[in-house]
Amino acid sequence: MVESQNKRDLAHARTKINFDVTDMTNFLHGGEANVEQRRYIIDLIANDPVFNKDDWGWLNHTDAVKRGIAMSTRLAEIKMEHDLNDLDFATMMEAIDDTLPIVLHNGAFIPVITSQGTEEQIDKWIPPAEKFQIIGCYAQTELGHGSNLSQLETTATFVKETDEWEINSTSFTAAKWWIGGLGALCTHAVVQARIFIEGKDYGAHVFVVPLRSLDDHKPFPGIEIGDIGPKAYNGFNKMDNGFARFNKYRIPRENMLMRFSKVSREGVYTKPPHSKLAYGSMVLLRSVLIKQMALYLSRAVTVSTRYLTVRRQFNNPTSRNDSDLNPGLETQVINYPMVQNRLFPMIAQSYALFVAGSVMMEMYIGLMTGLSSGNIGALAEVHAMSSALKSYCTTFAVAGVEESRKLMGGHGFSYFTGIAHLFASTVPSNTYEGDNYVLTQQMARYLLKEVKTARTNPDQVTPYSKYLLLGLNKSAFSRSTCSVALPEDWLNPAIQLAAFEHRCARLAYELADAVEQGGFDAANPKTWSDHNIECYRISHAHAQYVMVLWFTQAVRDAKNPETDVERRAEPASIKVLERLSNLHALHTIQTNLADFVEDGYFSPAQCQSLRAQVKSIVASLADDAVGLVDAFDHPDFLLNSALGATDGDAYQRLWDKAQSEPLNRRQVCDGYEEYIRPLLKKHGEFKL
Amino acid sequence: MVESQNKRDLAHARTKINFDVTDMTNFLHGGEANVEQRRYIIDLIANDPVFNKDDWGWLNHTDAVKRGIAMSTRLAEIKMEHDLNDLDFATMMEAIDDTLPIVLHNGAFIPVITSQGTEEQIDKWIPPAEKFQIIGCYAQTELGHGSNLSQLETTATFVKETDEWEINSTSFTAAKWWIGGLGALCTHAVVQARIFIEGKDYGAHVFVVPLRSLDDHKPFPGIEIGDIGPKAYNGFNKMDNGFARFNKYRIPRENMLMRFSKVSREGVYTKPPHSKLAYGSMVLLRSVLIKQMALYLSRAVTVSTRYLTVRRQFNNPTSRNDSDLNPGLETQVINYPMVQNRLFPMIAQSYALFVAGSVMMEMYIGLMTGLSSGNIGALAEVHAMSSALKSYCTTFAVAGVEESRKLMGGHGFSYFTGIAHLFASTVPSNTYEGDNYVLTQQMARYLLKEVKTARTNPDQVTPYSKYLLLGLNKSAFSRSTCSVALPEDWLNPAIQLAAFEHRCARLAYELADAVEQGGFDAANPKTWSDHNIECYRISHAHAQYVMVLWFTQAVRDAKNPETDVERRAEPASIKVLERLSNLHALHTIQTNLADFVEDGYFSPAQCQSLRAQVKSIVASLADDAVGLVDAFDHPDFLLNSALGATDGDAYQRLWDKAQSEPLNRRQVCDGYEEYIRPLLKKHGEFKL
Repeated sequence: MVESQNKRDLAHARTKINFDVTDMTNFLHGGEANVEQRRYIIDLIANDPVFNKDDWGWLNHTDAVKRGIAMSTRLAEIKMEHDLNDLDFATMMEAIDDTLPIVLHNGAFIPVITSQGTEEQIDKWIPPAEKFQIIGCYAQTELGHGSNLSQLETTATFVKETDEWEINSTSFTAAKWWIGGLGALCTHAVVQARIFIEGKDYGAHVFVVPLRSLDDHKPFPGIEIGDIGPKAYNGFNKMDNGFARFNKYRIPRENMLMRFSKVSREGVYTKPPHSKLAYGSMVLLRSVLIKQMALYLSRAVTVSTRYLTVRRQFNNPTSRNDSDLNPGLETQVINYPMVQNRLFPMIAQSYALFVAGSVMMEMYIGLMTGLSSGNIGALAEVHAMSSALKSYCTTFAVAGVEESRKLMGGHGFSYFTGIAHLFASTVPSNTYEGDNYVLTQQMARYLLKEVKTARTNPDQVTPYSKYLLLGLNKSAFSRSTCSVALPEDWLNPAIQLAAFEHRCARLAYELADAVEQGGFDAANPKTWSDHNIECYRISHAHAQYVMVLWFTQAVRDAKNPETDVERRAEPASIKVLERLSNLHALHTIQTNLADFVEDGYFSPAQCQSLRAQVKSIVASLADDAVGLVDAFDHPDFLLNSALGATDGDAYQRLWDKAQSEPLNRRQVCDGYEEYIRPLLKKHGEFKL
Repeated sequence: MVESQNKRDLAHARTKINFDVTDMTNFLHGGEANVEQRRYIIDLIANDPVFNKDDWGWLNHTDAVKRGIAMSTRLAEIKMEHDLNDLDFATMMEAIDDTLPIVLHNGAFIPVITSQGTEEQIDKWIPPAEKFQIIGCYAQTELGHGSNLSQLETTATFVKETDEWEINSTSFTAAKWWIGGLGALCTHAVVQARIFIEGKDYGAHVFVVPLRSLDDHKPFPGIEIGDIGPKAYNGFNKMDNGFARFNKYRIPRENMLMRFSKVSREGVYTKPPHSKLAYGSMVLLRSVLIKQMALYLSRAVTVSTRYLTVRRQFNNPTSRNDSDLNPGLETQVINYPMVQNRLFPMIAQSYALFVAGSVMMEMYIGLMTGLSSGNIGALAEVHAMSSALKSYCTTFAVAGVEESRKLMGGHGFSYFTGIAHLFASTVPSNTYEGDNYVLTQQMARYLLKEVKTARTNPDQVTPYSKYLLLGLNKSAFSRSTCSVALPEDWLNPAIQLAAFEHRCARLAYELADAVEQGGFDAANPKTWSDHNIECYRISHAHAQYVMVLWFTQAVRDAKNPETDVERRAEPASIKVLERLSNLHALHTIQTNLADFVEDGYFSPAQCQSLRAQVKSIVASLADDAVGLVDAFDHPDFLLNSALGATDGDAYQRLWDKAQSEPLNRRQVCDGYEEYIRPLLKKHGEFKL
């Protein structure tokens, strides 16, 4: 094999693309200005040696945390130098591509104080925090408790005599645990603790707690701090996730954040006015995750699409795109239909995620605008939506990252794919910010309320729940069937959406009926957990419906001349976007086919023609696959992949990377004299 | 929370088990003698300090390879001291719980020479290999080629003048790559290379190639050797997967293994007699993998079952097993139906894997007995079966390992679960020994031949393909439906198996029809790859059918007094085994429901009652879950898990493990003076 064949293969693939990659990039990232700004920020990071990734594969946790600290402090400096906005900061974190000890300083410490502190408290803590004179983290989770705030074991007891709180970890299971930034970096934390005043428990509240001396960084007496150790798959390796135990540790009364609840000098507790503003930050975190999943999954499929284009294995006369190249070469792996049918749906999912991430963020902004003017009407739906989408999107996107790695076969198991690191960083998203299973109860609860509304005030169901009206006439609904007659009917968005709506309506009413027949409702938790499987099903079904709806709408808008230019696309791009949208919808149906057929909505013949249609769309994308991943616009620094670099030179890079393995600095391995030689000589020397 | 509550919870759960755990352990491991021997071998490893796992989470690749070498040489010594048989050696590797540089010495180097060498070659190489005077590896895969032997780029050119072979890597993509043991440890390799004699290519053959000097371990001139670098998820961290490039490297002619093909002093090539014996070793490797998957998945569910029994979160009045304990405590997480419905099917799958591993190994032994007496009748079926089961079992078992980790929520992301290491070690099984997607073509090809047999000589189809006879009468078959009327009908193994048989028959004939309508057959690769998706479907469907069949038969045999005592079980064990077998069958159906319903075989009502039945069986296993995982008999040394140890003391162990984190040896982190302090002081000092 000629050494530059890899590069030639990828270059050749690019000659076949049927659309303008730049146009598609602009569509994905919301316009040219965003694309330019993202490139500018990524370059900023790429050109700073502290963020160099070349040796990451060899860092153990000790070395990695030190690196994480170096990267954190540099990040702080860049932030101050460039005065970056939230979007730029997010792009910077994307480029850095690892979780750093400092991330919760701006991600939680400052926002919590800002939203829950009084004006005086904000004036006291925020200016030094913004100048990094203090660095903070967010300490909620304990060894024995995660999301169940009401059972936290850390206590803060009011000491009237000295006007102080005494923070205490009642036992070692009360230790704050998993707290990012706590293990090594931070000087302060906002700490969740249950307050006790004169023996009475007033529940969890938030405190600003100094942790380490600003003189020498030593933990203050009364606080035991440490790092909780390495994580699964070497994930979060540079992060100093830590623990802290408090032993009668005293802080001033004013360190309790008192914007809502207050405790006076005399120890009088004032209840907070009912506020749902706290939901806003949860919605934000989950909405951001959708966009992140778009970036992560698209990175993984970029790598595998490029590598599978240059990897050749076996001679298969079928190989379509290949015959105009040297016919003596083996088949490009990407030309095997099995590979395309695994890979291309994930490209379509990546596009759907880009769209969903943008729409979800718009919903969040709309919600916050509403809330700031006292309108909480949208809160329940947006909260449920962000929960359902977070659960569904992080589940399939992370699974897709790993699937992209496996698609690459043997070499996929090398660290140098860049994908293993990505999986290790992203997989905790399935269990944090609300476990993906537990979280689905939010959407189910919301839909049960909507079912009630549909039954009593059908004109008041929200647009996303309109499908519930289909199920009001039970007997008509149970007889309804899919209208696909010809194979091309599957390409009709209205027919696709009708199928998702039918499925959602059926599952929602089945859940509602089961809950009612059990003689209880969602507000009564008695046997609510018996329905959690069905909650999971309807929540994911609803999320899939919304994803399909949004992608369909985005493609329709993209060809509408009245749409903002940032969201428009050229006809050649539209054509392939329509294919992606169809593939996304139909592949999602196929993956969940039982839900569409078990009540007779699809006929056996429709199931067959659906499968055929999916294969057909997949095949139609073959020439555009490389262009579709190029359009994500992920530079090589970001991909950090020997197999997926822009020029396609996979084997050369894999070879070069191996040469940099520290073990190869020695001709004879460490351990030869100590272990190998004695074994070889144990029964006398063998003569060749 | 009281500190010992964890232990009390697990102890309490053990009081509720409805069967004798020892009886179940004996059933799983094939009798008391096997159980005792396995414990003896694991203790042997557990008591040897070189195999201590306490610091594994912190080793970078350099340190890990040195450890791997230390472990390898100790393993060799133990092997010689105790003269262990294959089963004991496998148990030793299970206990060691990591892939070591030395494993291919006994796993491939010796077997290849023994099976492909002449008597003289065996006499020359095997005695020193058995005494570890030489240590070997197996070098097939190259940077540019994996399983496609015919396109390997390493060449061996016969040099008649000196009676030698000249081994050459034609380019850097010809470098041997991924070779375990090559990077640091081995002195020799068996190398696959294409031979050229007077310019003619005779295809790939196998050579014994000295790599490193037995005097000082330096690579011989003409060989460039190194380590290929770290792997995904820190997997195979102690393994020196290596590369080697040959530059006109000479070895004697006799170093080509010549049991089959021969090359004479004059350079005359003699073709091998047709031999299918080589398939035997592939069947063995894949059969062993099934048993390994049983051990791996069962370890993962042991950890999560125990941890979820002691983890308590939220107050749920539903909690069933809990009310006789302190009612003030939160609910044990394992009592949530959602958790049970994710976890218990994986316990059932683990049991099914134990059974399948044993039956597959019996099939292999039967095959080899047959082959040794010249009977190749069973080869095609056993080869297809081992391929189909390898693909299916490694796919779901590895996914189950990760699912077990995620079930544990936040703490599941700690390295100290022990499960992340397990996943990292096992996930390459999806892509090695035949990629799980590519491999399914074996079973599909086999079944297409069986379809022809069914159509022409229906009495000659093998027992496992008998279901094909169902489909001979097309119109009757297409009208056939599942006979379940009452919910309890689902518990009838005959009805379960009938459903799997119907599905397999339908998919097999659909594939056969599609292949025929395309005007080509499996022997003609022209558009064979267009059917690979369907090959994957039928192969996995067949594997599931066989798994269900074998588990059903094993439970039936277990209560038959005429069965060997090692495979019998007590009535109390039988009762729970029947539940597991039912759960395994019905959960497998539910997971693949579309296949059973899309042609009308199941009715809508049956789908509903199936789902209800799965929930009901899951609930019936609640009291026995801890007993079922205890029965796997995995000692704490093997589990190496803070969360899943036998005594249940999860929080204490997690705490203790964190204290051992090397970062915690310092009160102030490395990097403070260099990075943190300058940042904190940059804008002047903040005064608390």
